[in-house]
Amino acid sequence: MSHDELYVKMALISWDAHVKRIDALLAALGDEQWQQEISPGRNRGIYLLGHLMVVHDDMAELLGLGEKRHPGLQAVFLTNPDNKSGKDMPPVATLRQYWSDANARLADHFKSMTTGDWFSQHTRMSADDFVKEPHRNKLSVLLSRTSHMAYHHGQLVLLRK
Amino acid sequence: MSHDELYVKMALISWDAHVKRIDALLAALGDEQWQQEISPGRNRGIYLLGHLMVVHDDMAELLGLGEKRHPGLQAVFLTNPDNKSGKDMPPVATLRQYWSDANARLADHFKSMTTGDWFSQHTRMSADDFVKEPHRNKLSVLLSRTSHMAYHHGQLVLLRK
Repeated sequence: MSHDELYVKMALISWDAHVKRIDALLAALGDEQWQQEISPGRNRGIYLLGHLMVVHDDMAELLGLGEKRHPGLQAVFLTNPDNKSGKDMPPVATLRQYWSDANARLADHFKSMTTGDWFSQHTRMSADDFVKEPHRNKLSVLLSRTSHMAYHHGQLVLLRK
Repeated sequence: MSHDELYVKMALISWDAHVKRIDALLAALGDEQWQQEISPGRNRGIYLLGHLMVVHDDMAELLGLGEKRHPGLQAVFLTNPDNKSGKDMPPVATLRQYWSDANARLADHFKSMTTGDWFSQHTRMSADDFVKEPHRNKLSVLLSRTSHMAYHHGQLVLLRK
């Protein structure tokens, strides 16, 4: 196995492990537990679940595999803070499905990507910038979104009693 | 720049960014705030700071650059849960210094490492296992410890009022 193949494999192993950790929390905690705040006055589980989902939904565009499925939810879960009145927020059961679908869509695409594809620029990078900063490639998107999951996983485990 | 060099660069950029985020919290929060729990009944900031420090201290051994500096603190911050009586726990001011020293030691070593070094086995991996699982190299240690920082950073930001 070449080094190129090795590090794509390392990055994908880490991504999968982090998705599985969130999935394990989803299996362990009932919908009503996702309505709780991670700490008094802080974000609720439902907001963080929706937040992770829209970020992964957006990765479809960033990696060039298609449009996002839930553009209307970016405002609810990304550009605005947790609206605890619940207005415009889909139920946890729906978000579970969206989360699962977004990750399945990415996983399918990852299988079709060559090692070289991972080193190509992502869609929000100009060709000029990419010449100057070739480390800002699709693989860097995968790595940063993996850390993003780790960050919020550290918060979501606080929903466990 | 070769793909090998690129990948090591990406991993080091991410590592540095995560260390800086913890450093920024250390600059923003006074010692007494680190005594607070991240959520009622959960770990205190001081425990998580010590925990991150001993994990980074241990990386010296895992990456083969020398012995850990604070072996006695592994029990306090890694193998045992947060002991809120404070017994055996150094003050926050001391942990700040240990944290800074551990990261400076690693940063110095990283500068001396070649790209090839990152793809070599870490010290707790047998040669036989490494043949079977070459992705478990020093770079994978860096990636997993970066995610580990992200996980606890997500918790430590809850100390901010």
